[in-house]
Parts: sequence; structure tokens; C-alpha cells
Amino acid sequence: MKSEFDLIYYIKKSYGLTAIGDDCAVLPKSSDLDLLITADLLVEDIDFRLEWTEAEWLGHKALAVSLSDIAAMGGRPLWAMLSIGVPEKLWETDFVKRFYDGWTKLADRFAVELVGGDISRSPDRFVVDSIAAGEVKKGAAVLRSGAKPGDAIFVSGRLGRAAGGLRVLERPAERGSDAKGEEKLIDRQLRPTPRVELGLELCERQIASAMIDLSDGLSSDLHHICEMSGVGAEIDSALLPIDENLKNTFDEDEQLALALNGGEDFELLFTVPQEKISLLENADVSRIGTINENVGVMQLSDGERLVDLHPSGYRHF
Amino acid sequence: MKSEFDLIYYIKKSYGLTAIGDDCAVLPKSSDLDLLITADLLVEDIDFRLEWTEAEWLGHKALAVSLSDIAAMGGRPLWAMLSIGVPEKLWETDFVKRFYDGWTKLADRFAVELVGGDISRSPDRFVVDSIAAGEVKKGAAVLRSGAKPGDAIFVSGRLGRAAGGLRVLERPAERGSDAKGEEKLIDRQLRPTPRVELGLELCERQIASAMIDLSDGLSSDLHHICEMSGVGAEIDSALLPIDENLKNTFDEDEQLALALNGGEDFELLFTVPQEKISLLENADVSRIGTINENVGVMQLSDGERLVDLHPSGYRHF
Repeated sequence: MKSEFDLIYYIKKSYGLTAIGDDCAVLPKSSDLDLLITADLLVEDIDFRLEWTEAEWLGHKALAVSLSDIAAMGGRPLWAMLSIGVPEKLWETDFVKRFYDGWTKLADRFAVELVGGDISRSPDRFVVDSIAAGEVKKGAAVLRSGAKPGDAIFVSGRLGRAAGGLRVLERPAERGSDAKGEEKLIDRQLRPTPRVELGLELCERQIASAMIDLSDGLSSDLHHICEMSGVGAEIDSALLPIDENLKNTFDEDEQLALALNGGEDFELLFTVPQEKISLLENADVSRIGTINENVGVMQLSDGERLVDLHPSGYRHF
Repeated sequence: MKSEFDLIYYIKKSYGLTAIGDDCAVLPKSSDLDLLITADLLVEDIDFRLEWTEAEWLGHKALAVSLSDIAAMGGRPLWAMLSIGVPEKLWETDFVKRFYDGWTKLADRFAVELVGGDISRSPDRFVVDSIAAGEVKKGAAVLRSGAKPGDAIFVSGRLGRAAGGLRVLERPAERGSDAKGEEKLIDRQLRPTPRVELGLELCERQIASAMIDLSDGLSSDLHHICEMSGVGAEIDSALLPIDENLKNTFDEDEQLALALNGGEDFELLFTVPQEKISLLENADVSRIGTINENVGVMQLSDGERLVDLHPSGYRHF
């Protein structure tokens, strides 16, 4: 058992589960609505470092990653829960209050209500489990499994920004002259914006055939779509919307690697049938490639050559 | 901010929350049903110790504590999620597989489906957030706030067993001659049984006016009912169903303290209007006292004297 993907596969297989495998579980809610629900566990020193962030930002990010999962299925966020494990040293400060303040500020923007959760002591590290729920018209949730050969592959926003920010944080000695650009990278790493409105629009107007949010990284997340849809994909490297703030700090190879494999941008990656592409004209999205019939194979084109693209985004193990 | 109760109060007050405050959040599901949802965070070395338990039992307990919350509101369990943070040393063993096996065995008993969750690495301690959901007829969830003066106070099963088990585990040098009895105490601490069927019956037959599960301990949990219902309570110490397995290991004072303040029995504590008491004739429940009008005051009677009873069950901080 070597990765969390393997474990999820093992659990699904062993226990005959059908609901696991997308960004959220899709559950029947009422006669005309489905409930979407997702959980994201963030552990200090694995998923975040307290010396890099502010309590408010961590509260923001805990909710943002869960709202991004709901966005990736086209859902409307409804409510959320927070379970936190708090070490004694933080308990004696205003950390928890500030954490909730940051959480609440983002929640208010999307009218998300905090309905519950749990609070425990923790020996020495802060831990958060963020649970969020949303709703979607029955049967309308955008799954990872809906991509068809010929569909165009789109991504929202810019790529590599959050991973660039993490790199800057991890190697402060290598910081370049573009302090302003680097701050923008760091801000995306610490305060990502969930693409809730875009996800809703792509679902309600039935534009996206498959969708996922970029949490592990483009190559890993596209691999999930290919696997679940039984298709392949070809990406054109010239079309990748590499974040402009990477340009002064990273060389071209590094920029491409960050865009392809860097996680946590929390942009949306989705596929669109050819006849619906024109519906996307005014959105901040980029077409980066096309779905094809080479089941399980992802390739990267630079206009001349085709190279195989392997999933190499973030894995916990 | 000194206890988790204070923090929950602070969060509710600061953010205008109404849904927090019972064992589960009660949320509208459909035109005739409400959704119940609860989260329980268990942190290694705070909420459990790996040297005392088995992976399977920990999986069992993680789900049991959440199902107990659903039982305490009279709900029927539906589905659950698990977020786990796994240290590398456990990842290399069959711990996670055995944890899920134990979880699944209990889930199957109540037809609970695992629908999602998250898996993260953790630096050195295992952490679990257990989320469970159930359903109940709209408006029928049994709240903590429904107790009225004159209602009888009941508890299911026996008291002090889990806390007695914890004491035996904590002080192995003091173990007595009653090995069999002590094993029963330990078993309740490590493998509690959620009272799902009883909770359902008390709700569906509209017997209970208020209910909570015994997680913090009788004095604390009764205090929650008194606070939320705006009432007081008198308990008759002679009526407390003190677990018989405590008798050979603890003296009478210790037994009483374990029954009053020991947590994690996961029995149900509930109030019953006088005219409905006869409906409980065949249940394994004990009447232990009566709700009265002394708002916020709990008293313990030994037949001769009345002493004030203060909430002193388990608190995380």
C-alpha cells in the first residue's frame, strides 16, 4: 500500500463502495436535489506550517479547499463543519479565534453556515478537518467520469502559482528580485480562491462534461479524469496559462514543471464537448488540449514532438 | 477561553449560529425529513492510546461515538465519512487496513455506508475525524432543550463502566483480583456500543422529551440538558445503575464518582413526561431522578441529604 490513491482504491474495492471517487460524495437529498459532501484533513507540518501563515489565512484555506471540491462538481455550497485539534500552546493565544475569523470571512462570501464540528486537544500539532456540503440538481453533478474523445480540455485562471509560492517559502535564500511577484505566488499558496461561481455556471449551463479541481497538480488531476472516463489526453504546452508571476523567479523548465505538476492552485480543470466551446467566450479559462481515445495515456505536445506525461503531482505517501 | 464548552459558546455567540449545540446538527433534508450530522475528532495520546487498543477496536470506536450522537437525537444512521492522518510508521503496517475492518464491521451492523473522507500523512500521531449522518422525521429530532419540570430522568444500561476501564488501563499496578470484571470494564472503554435502536424507539414513539448521550459523564451531560432546557434536576444516588463490574475493583465512593463523572459509557440520558413512563416497562433503562424548576441547579439525594452536583466530567482543556 504505497499511496493514498492506492488506499482509496483498496478501500473502494474491499468494501464495495460506489460513492467514493469524485471530489465530493453525491448523495440523494430530496426528490429534485442531490447533496454533495467533502472532507479535507490538514495536518500541521504536513499540509501547512504555522511559521509561514497567519491563523486567519489558515481558516480561509481550510474552507477554501473544501469549497473548491464542491465547485469541481458544480455545486452550490450550503453549510460546513470544522473539527480542530488544538495544542495547548495555541489554546492560550488568540489563534483559534483568528482561525475562525478567517474561516467565517470566506464562509460569509458564499453564505456558508457553520453547523457543527468537534474540538479536541492535540499533543503538539494543530490539525483541522474541514467538511463542507453543497447541493446540485439531481443527477446534474459534474463527475470526473464524463469526458469523451474529442472534448476540449480547459483550465481556469493561471497555473503553477500556488506551487511557485510554496517553493519560494521553502527556499527563502533563493528569493529573486521580483518581491511583488513572489508575494502574489505566496498569497495563492496561503489564500487560494475556490472557483465556486465558475463551477456553478459550468454545471447549470451544462457546459462541462467532466470536471476536477487542481489540488494535486494538472498531470495528476488530468490523470484522474482520464482514468475515471476511460480516455486519454493530449496537452499542448504552448497553450498552458503559466502564471506570469513565475517568470522572474523560475527558469522556463521550472515554470513548465510547476504548471504541470504543482498542486494547490484550486483552479478548475474540465472538459467541454466541441459544440459547447463557444459558450465559454467571456470566461477566464484556457483551452489546453483535447481528450482522445488512447485510454489512460496522457501526452504533451510542444508543436513538434509528443512526449508521455505522467501523473507526478503531490502525494501524501 | 478555558474549555471547549466556552469555545463552542464563544463561536455560537460570535457568529450568530443556531445549529450548533446538540449532539448533531439538524438540517433540512427534504419536505418530510431532517438530516442529522455529527463529527468526532479523536487524537492519539489524547483520546486514545495505541498501546491499549487494537486497530480494529479503534475503527469500531471512531464510528461508535458518532453513531451514539445520532442515537441521542433519535435518528436512523445513513452514511459516514472518515478523515485519517497516518504517521509513516503505521503506514508500513496493516494498521490502516485493520482500522477500516473494525470500522466496517460496526457500519455493516447498522447499514451505514462509507461515502468519503480524506487521508493525510501525519508527523507522528494517528488522528481520526469521524463524520456520520442520519435522518429523522422533520421536526422530530430529540433535542437537549425539551426537558420540563416533572419529567422523569432515565439512563440506559449501566454507569461508570467505560471510566472504570480507563482507570484500570491507566493504573495497571493497582489491578485487583477480578480480572474478568476488569476486562469487561476495559472492553466498554475500547469498544462502546452505540444505543441506536433505543434512540430510534424513544424518538419514534415520542417517549423522550430531551436526550443526550453519555460522552462527557452523567453530571456534565445532565448539566447540558438542564442548561439547554432551562430547568434543574434531582438525582437519587440509590437509583444510579452503577456497573456491577466496578464493585470488586473500586470502593463505594469511587464507584459513585465513576458513575456520576466518568465519561464514554455512550449510554443514553433522557427525560420522560410522567404519563409516558409506563411505555418504558420492558426497556433496559433506569429512572434516576426528576427534572424540577431550579434553573441550572443539579442536586444529588442519598435519601437523607441533598448535595449540589456540579458538572465534572471530561473536558479537553
